[in-house]
Amino acid sequence: MPHPSPSPTPSPTLTRVRLAYERIDAVDRPEIWIDLRARPDVEAEARAVDARLAAGDRLPLAGRLLAVKGNIDVHGLPTTAGCPAYAYTPDADAPVVARLREAGAIVLGTTNLDQFATGLVGTRSPYGAVRNAHDPSRVSGGSSSGSAVAVALGIVDLALGTDTAGSGRVPAAFNGIVGLKPTRGLVPTTGVVPACASLDCVTVFARTLPEAEQALAHMTSPPARALPALPQRTPGPWRVAVPPREQLGELDDGWAEAYEAAVARLGDAGVEIRALDLTPFTEAAAMLYQGAFVAERYTAVGAFVDKALADGADCLDPTVAGIISRAREVPAHQLFADQDRLATLRAHALAELADADALLLPTAPGHPTLAEVAADPLGANARLGRFTNSTNLFDLAAVAAPAGEVNGLPFGVMLIGPAFTDERLARIAALLPPETRLAVVGAHLSGQPLNPQLLALGARLERTTTTAPVYRLHALRTSPPKPGLVHVGEGGAAIETEIWRLPADGLGRLLTALPHPMTLGSVQLADGTSTPGFLCEPTALRDAEDITRHGGWRSFLTNGGPEGAA
Amino acid sequence: MPHPSPSPTPSPTLTRVRLAYERIDAVDRPEIWIDLRARPDVEAEARAVDARLAAGDRLPLAGRLLAVKGNIDVHGLPTTAGCPAYAYTPDADAPVVARLREAGAIVLGTTNLDQFATGLVGTRSPYGAVRNAHDPSRVSGGSSSGSAVAVALGIVDLALGTDTAGSGRVPAAFNGIVGLKPTRGLVPTTGVVPACASLDCVTVFARTLPEAEQALAHMTSPPARALPALPQRTPGPWRVAVPPREQLGELDDGWAEAYEAAVARLGDAGVEIRALDLTPFTEAAAMLYQGAFVAERYTAVGAFVDKALADGADCLDPTVAGIISRAREVPAHQLFADQDRLATLRAHALAELADADALLLPTAPGHPTLAEVAADPLGANARLGRFTNSTNLFDLAAVAAPAGEVNGLPFGVMLIGPAFTDERLARIAALLPPETRLAVVGAHLSGQPLNPQLLALGARLERTTTTAPVYRLHALRTSPPKPGLVHVGEGGAAIETEIWRLPADGLGRLLTALPHPMTLGSVQLADGTSTPGFLCEPTALRDAEDITRHGGWRSFLTNGGPEGAA
Repeated sequence: MPHPSPSPTPSPTLTRVRLAYERIDAVDRPEIWIDLRARPDVEAEARAVDARLAAGDRLPLAGRLLAVKGNIDVHGLPTTAGCPAYAYTPDADAPVVARLREAGAIVLGTTNLDQFATGLVGTRSPYGAVRNAHDPSRVSGGSSSGSAVAVALGIVDLALGTDTAGSGRVPAAFNGIVGLKPTRGLVPTTGVVPACASLDCVTVFARTLPEAEQALAHMTSPPARALPALPQRTPGPWRVAVPPREQLGELDDGWAEAYEAAVARLGDAGVEIRALDLTPFTEAAAMLYQGAFVAERYTAVGAFVDKALADGADCLDPTVAGIISRAREVPAHQLFADQDRLATLRAHALAELADADALLLPTAPGHPTLAEVAADPLGANARLGRFTNSTNLFDLAAVAAPAGEVNGLPFGVMLIGPAFTDERLARIAALLPPETRLAVVGAHLSGQPLNPQLLALGARLERTTTTAPVYRLHALRTSPPKPGLVHVGEGGAAIETEIWRLPADGLGRLLTALPHPMTLGSVQLADGTSTPGFLCEPTALRDAEDITRHGGWRSFLTNGGPEGAA
Repeated sequence: MPHPSPSPTPSPTLTRVRLAYERIDAVDRPEIWIDLRARPDVEAEARAVDARLAAGDRLPLAGRLLAVKGNIDVHGLPTTAGCPAYAYTPDADAPVVARLREAGAIVLGTTNLDQFATGLVGTRSPYGAVRNAHDPSRVSGGSSSGSAVAVALGIVDLALGTDTAGSGRVPAAFNGIVGLKPTRGLVPTTGVVPACASLDCVTVFARTLPEAEQALAHMTSPPARALPALPQRTPGPWRVAVPPREQLGELDDGWAEAYEAAVARLGDAGVEIRALDLTPFTEAAAMLYQGAFVAERYTAVGAFVDKALADGADCLDPTVAGIISRAREVPAHQLFADQDRLATLRAHALAELADADALLLPTAPGHPTLAEVAADPLGANARLGRFTNSTNLFDLAAVAAPAGEVNGLPFGVMLIGPAFTDERLARIAALLPPETRLAVVGAHLSGQPLNPQLLALGARLERTTTTAPVYRLHALRTSPPKPGLVHVGEGGAAIETEIWRLPADGLGRLLTALPHPMTLGSVQLADGTSTPGFLCEPTALRDAEDITRHGGWRSFLTNGGPEGAA
């Protein structure tokens, strides 16, 4: 029977807010939030945004859900910096929050962090250690821990963080999302609790690079720092610098290979890979906590911490309190010496960058478990900053982006460049698009007639395996001949399968050209995982020979192939 | 039975070359080529590239197949400029060709063009009128006609064109591909037959923006023009200028709506839309052929054309020969006057662009048929250049990109900006990603539980329709309840369907999250077209109620829904 045409969802923002609160309940990660706003208040704000949209208002970020790190002012919520006793309730949004709200973004609440943004682990908080989005036994990374996990778990679209030593990048890497660390001063830090006031940057997390860039465009408008004229880049392929393997030091198992794979993908995309001496970067990194610069953290909140310690306040994180309190003893003459040393290292670093558009590094050297951090709070944390600590000391820009997986957990890389090259870094990072896997059992197998379709999409063979033993394979009467993979559960067999990796958008292009009766769906593999792969429509099985006994399409072809195909 | 693991295709470049020659036979468009290289020669070159790859050579464009417009020198092939009597055989590649070959690209041959690159239609050639890739009754656009169609039909990955009045952009728009018109002088024009030597640019066509940008990076390295320092762009959302509707003049049916949709999509992506006065652009455009500038075409090839006319050579295109021969009579005093007038118009144009990052325009005002051009060769051609003619006169950069369809044919837009803003224009064009349609029949329908998934991917409802009457609908025992659409042919019915539009990469993201037993495949619609849509695996139909009689999922839910779901 005919049916009246429906109108699109009347209130898209409200719909997304409701979905977000359902998601918050579903994921059961209460430690993400310090103050989650009351759902009715947020729904009312969503209705108002939808009403403005309906009235024709221009709201570029309408419907985007935003989480704000707990050291950034949100009007009406306490600013805690991860310490209840420090909390104050601001009478206005920080300018960066106000800019995103003016563009239509909806704030859900403030997120957990390493207390006073002092840490890269995400465990240093009286509000609880933030567990990793993909593996609750591992750290989320910090200090912008709750913000990163809220994005990674699909609760919010955007989240604000801060980054002094790497707090806006390490959590991005550990949770498989994008983190933009803009050039120092582009985003105002007014309304942000300082960690090291001269180094702090406000950062943004999102699941995709374009989403993060769109938000950053509003965060930096207008910039809080004067923009010098820059020499124009000489046209030609991007040039990305990478250090020799030994300068990367000890990495977790599989991380060196994942990093080399990212370098190779940039090479495949036409990027010129160059060598670089990482020494000045790693030497400066070691100075951030071991040197005199930590004293700026005492300047920021030292008086409060000392008084709270004297009062025996129970809300201080002991590791953070120790770092900040000890910083009182740093003599100024050491700061002069360190600043002089830093200037020399920075000159060396910029000279190393002179022949390249960006430096590519793993965002972190490894991903510790909660237990490993608990066993060695200072050591585990210090290791995480090896590649990120020097970025703000050198006044550089950085983009942290996902670059595949290691043992089923996210692996991330970082592109670093001179101040004001933020857009350039994002364009190079865009050459590392998210990849997806595709299970292939027939005409797209290596060397088979349709395999060039995969090659043309930039696909690469990852491995050969079999399906879980729950499928049957049929020889379809298509041209060229193709098999139809059918899930049957009981009575199924393991079918030879190739797993290919291809850019996520390639999957869409493949599907758009997919001829009836072939389909794409979820295929269960021998290792228990599932991946998108080729299936077929039910009717395709009419008059189709069951060839399951051959164990795979190639084997079937070897043994004679389709009836009358010879 | 187990099966040995295969290695990836041993010779990817050779595979792609063979596929290309098969494609050339299959599409049967001989007018694309002026000189197609012998297949054995190209296969030998492909083997050499694959051998260098195997040896570890860095070849960023390895395996990319390249077509070269017939007015650009390719070593060993005649350079005809579309006129057999003019042909000469160069002893070297033009530098731009050499740069792409050095990066691993494989030249398949030289392509057809409007003779002496004089025209925007693609019909002015003794080698035949080049038919549009999507509709053989319509023009390909020109003058880079064969290059654009070779890319659009998937024969080659990249093709070189030239652009004086719009020859690198109009064919991109008519064939649904990307055309980059770089800032004048970035790409050397050595080894290119001049049209208007002071305006000519070498351009590149590709099916996607990243592919085109990667090739351009090699074409411009090193640049043939000094690069001035540019003031740094103030951070903030992109600002795109659009003219008032009436200044666009007469457009083909549906083209104004398609242009407004492209403007809206940029707005949705966060771009600030501003108003601009198009008058100086269109006034300068009219000067290109009607004014004195056409005399430069006589400077280039006038002597040859006059002699060929005197000799009664039969290979001249009468329209082209007339334009060039008449240009002999243009007096120099008119050129001085026109140059003065142009300087004034350019000053006005740059002032209009001052408050924006780019100007967005339809690439052309309409898409004529071969018959319409034959009936009015000069008038039809002049109309096509309304938006493109002024770009090189004003020393601007341009990117032509697909922006949807009108009546099943490609619609294209153009982003124009000041000299040296090429990268910026490409980044803004990237905010107009290719869209695909998705047929939805169940839980993803508007207002249904999974519809927010589509909204989160940036999908928009296009229309409500039904499938072709060849499907049956089943209520699957999934949670949430979903219908399974099954193609049966005979005995099927028309099922209520919503057609959604979403970014192509969104389809991949949707598929990656698609749970068994749902699948995506090709769905036949009532209007006879097919589009990707939701289907299901055969086993999902076990114990599933046939609800076809309800005509759709919503109607089924209205009438009680799943058994026991109440």
